[in-house]
Amino acid sequence: MNNIVLVGFMGSGKSTVGRHLANRMGRTFVDLDDEITVEAGRSVAEIFASEGEDGFRDRETRGLERVLARAELIIAAGGGGPMRDENWRRIRTGNTVIALIAEAPELARRLKGSEGRPLLQPDGASAIAALLPSRISRYLEADLVVRTDGREPVAVAAHIADSLPAPGLQRIPVDVPGAAHQIVVGSHLGHVVASTVQRLVNTGPAIVISDSQVAARHAAPLMATLSSAGIAPTLHLVPPGEPAKETTVLSGIYEALGSTGVDRQGMLVVLGGGTVGDVAGFAAATWMRGIRYVQVPTTLLAMVDSSIGGKTGINLPSGKNMVGAVHQPSAVFCDLDYLATLPDADYHASLAEVIKAALVADRAFVRWLWRNLPALLRRDIAVIGEAITRAIRIKASVVARDPDERHERAILNYGHTVGHALERALGYGRLRHGEAVAWGMEVASRISLLNRTGSDHAARVQHELLDQAGLLKNRPVVGRADLLAALRHDKKSQSGEPRWVLLRELGRADYGVQVDPKTVSSALGEVLSI
Amino acid sequence: MNNIVLVGFMGSGKSTVGRHLANRMGRTFVDLDDEITVEAGRSVAEIFASEGEDGFRDRETRGLERVLARAELIIAAGGGGPMRDENWRRIRTGNTVIALIAEAPELARRLKGSEGRPLLQPDGASAIAALLPSRISRYLEADLVVRTDGREPVAVAAHIADSLPAPGLQRIPVDVPGAAHQIVVGSHLGHVVASTVQRLVNTGPAIVISDSQVAARHAAPLMATLSSAGIAPTLHLVPPGEPAKETTVLSGIYEALGSTGVDRQGMLVVLGGGTVGDVAGFAAATWMRGIRYVQVPTTLLAMVDSSIGGKTGINLPSGKNMVGAVHQPSAVFCDLDYLATLPDADYHASLAEVIKAALVADRAFVRWLWRNLPALLRRDIAVIGEAITRAIRIKASVVARDPDERHERAILNYGHTVGHALERALGYGRLRHGEAVAWGMEVASRISLLNRTGSDHAARVQHELLDQAGLLKNRPVVGRADLLAALRHDKKSQSGEPRWVLLRELGRADYGVQVDPKTVSSALGEVLSI
Repeated sequence: MNNIVLVGFMGSGKSTVGRHLANRMGRTFVDLDDEITVEAGRSVAEIFASEGEDGFRDRETRGLERVLARAELIIAAGGGGPMRDENWRRIRTGNTVIALIAEAPELARRLKGSEGRPLLQPDGASAIAALLPSRISRYLEADLVVRTDGREPVAVAAHIADSLPAPGLQRIPVDVPGAAHQIVVGSHLGHVVASTVQRLVNTGPAIVISDSQVAARHAAPLMATLSSAGIAPTLHLVPPGEPAKETTVLSGIYEALGSTGVDRQGMLVVLGGGTVGDVAGFAAATWMRGIRYVQVPTTLLAMVDSSIGGKTGINLPSGKNMVGAVHQPSAVFCDLDYLATLPDADYHASLAEVIKAALVADRAFVRWLWRNLPALLRRDIAVIGEAITRAIRIKASVVARDPDERHERAILNYGHTVGHALERALGYGRLRHGEAVAWGMEVASRISLLNRTGSDHAARVQHELLDQAGLLKNRPVVGRADLLAALRHDKKSQSGEPRWVLLRELGRADYGVQVDPKTVSSALGEVLSI
Repeated sequence: MNNIVLVGFMGSGKSTVGRHLANRMGRTFVDLDDEITVEAGRSVAEIFASEGEDGFRDRETRGLERVLARAELIIAAGGGGPMRDENWRRIRTGNTVIALIAEAPELARRLKGSEGRPLLQPDGASAIAALLPSRISRYLEADLVVRTDGREPVAVAAHIADSLPAPGLQRIPVDVPGAAHQIVVGSHLGHVVASTVQRLVNTGPAIVISDSQVAARHAAPLMATLSSAGIAPTLHLVPPGEPAKETTVLSGIYEALGSTGVDRQGMLVVLGGGTVGDVAGFAAATWMRGIRYVQVPTTLLAMVDSSIGGKTGINLPSGKNMVGAVHQPSAVFCDLDYLATLPDADYHASLAEVIKAALVADRAFVRWLWRNLPALLRRDIAVIGEAITRAIRIKASVVARDPDERHERAILNYGHTVGHALERALGYGRLRHGEAVAWGMEVASRISLLNRTGSDHAARVQHELLDQAGLLKNRPVVGRADLLAALRHDKKSQSGEPRWVLLRELGRADYGVQVDPKTVSSALGEVLSI
């Protein structure tokens, strides 16, 4: 477990690069061929001669099992070993797999005169040409694929060491039926993104969609990393903020997809916050009836909420998110590095969604927040990582059970009925989404108390968390009639009456609750003084 | 079996309306309460007094079983009987269920002084108020729901008789996981559409989308039928033909949805051919992330092909159907009456898709077509009904197994690789879709012969059917370079090479086949003389 396994064709440089890498990382290097020949007491050529290729492959499978049982090694696996499905499964389970690849003529040059390699006899070049195509597609499934043509082994080793994910990388599964995928949380994820995109598109075209503000800061490194992985994506920019979700911007994305030649073999990478994620995700959902996309959220809000679960959409003059689709991404990469440049006010507002996730679904997380909120407010990176991972796990498991929000997923809208109405009534952009949601949670909590369906304790804990996070500092000033009109506009309303999500106790919410308009009115009055 | 069962609250008029209906239709009327009291030798009140409500309900279940075992009756079921799930299942299996409904005050007025009704004691009005809400939701699941307030029983009976589907109505299930629905094929389906829409939307808003040409002929009757069922839909028109699929038309539909107030409780009814189905279906797929819709296709092509399977889309300057979604309808109604006004040329061209369905999936249907093509060309309505039903069954079963066209659904694109390329190269509208597909099937068939993967027999039968249907009369005149350029533009292409659907033998096709460009070139030359 936790080994780094190098795979690749004969001559791709596994042994040499592996030794450099082991040296650099202070790990032990094991060459699988050595393991086999030492155990057999004979050379590879001798084993082939006496036991045939099948005999050698059986020894290889057993040898692989032995070395993989050890931990923290750098292992050069044989060129053909990964072709056996059982070997490949074993290699990929709990280990990081690096594929070294090179063009056939380069391999032939390197392997000239290798009498000890039975598969290259009698003619190396034609043997390579025959074997390479079937093997390359397997190698491309590795976690990281590195070209070695024209590069010194020591440079290749350095590149691999830099590309390895930092320790502590989390992979959270989102088991949506028919669209299962992972959310990766960690730091320095550029190369993980690149190798995933590379694996998904192979040689298909790719496009990166970002907004002009985010791109100024973060597009260049991502584009460079993608390019160095052999992908040459186009970059298409949209305006920052809500204007990104206008139909003209969507048309612009479609044009870019068309001119880049993105078809069903291609994919789209979203780099940015919630708005670019919404519009670019909707383009991915509808271009050629749906292409693959990955989300690379750059804000805390997008990491814990909007990038997860596949909700996409655009705005119309008649309302926000009036047009949309549910289309799951192929992967989501939450790179904590992006949060370093996030302004404090945005960071604080986003904590509303983190607190919300805990309140509706995870009592233990509420307790954790209670203890760790000060560190979270200080922006302690380890604490942020844990908070994000916990919030994502909640959303991922709810989405997996109800991807189309027919039932349980509705609990994630806690605080959003009044939250959206506040944003609508005040004019979008006047209040941060997180603050609007915080006030929405307070109104919902008051309704539960008036209804006697929620506990005093839950209401107090919620208030304290939101207050400490600075989310209740400025009470929004809104007209009662405007707010009531905005409430009737809710997408989840039925015959003009909104359906509510209410907290029953810490970690447990009810959804689709009908509330007497008089109770709503009292709660609005008490919380918002209107 | 084949009974007509009237359900509804006490006082809704089941017995009176039932007698009129039996009289009108020449059938026997049975009142379930009579059946129970005669069998028991006691009145309903006496049974309640001695055996309680449970005892009465047990007798009711047994009585229902006895009368439902008979056939072709008009049965007035008791008001409470349908509330037992086992009774409801039995009533709905193989019978037509009509619910009579009326407002509570009207019921109270009618029931005044009914001492023989134990459930109404001591106070009729409050008993009705208490019982009605729980029962009404079950009654609304009936095949047809008829309001009886303020209407004479004889008029209600006439309305029911007119609303009953003509004999020979077919219901074809489309078992898409998570989106199972039915395709109904028959004549005079207006009332079936109305009762389905009514059941789906209850009191939610509805909108009918049609094109101006179709609407001139067919919108008024459908709107009237929907209105008489208590639905008051808005009618929104789009241009006829491909211009309907422009983004501006889509925006117009969104505006109409917004101003009609269609939310997730509402629905959309599409009345027309393939183009209005595509754009309105896409609007349904994306409005508020997806609302329900039903398809009422008015052309043969839409009935056997485009209205089934949920493919929706619009055109962009960069190509046809570049933007779209797969969104299954809640029901499809193929009313054969619409075909009476279909021009001969359109009718003939549509037979290409019928022949295609048989060739790729159903050898017995090929044989049937071979015998019945003359009657089909004469537009014999019974033969058309059977051909449509068979073609739909093929598409429904393929779509159910592979709704997102990841695998097997691709066989339905037989003939479409070259067919689409011909339409594109010649300019849309120059060649009918069916004719383009027919030539596409001929090219594909020639490829199979050149490749030696298809049988001579299949090729000859295909040619004969297409030729007899008049689909090969005019060989399209197209430039070779234009056609090859259009071929590379195919959505199913991979790295610029189209993937082909080829016929192996009658009723069996392969998909995703890669063909040597030289073979494609020869086949194009031989079939299209280019």
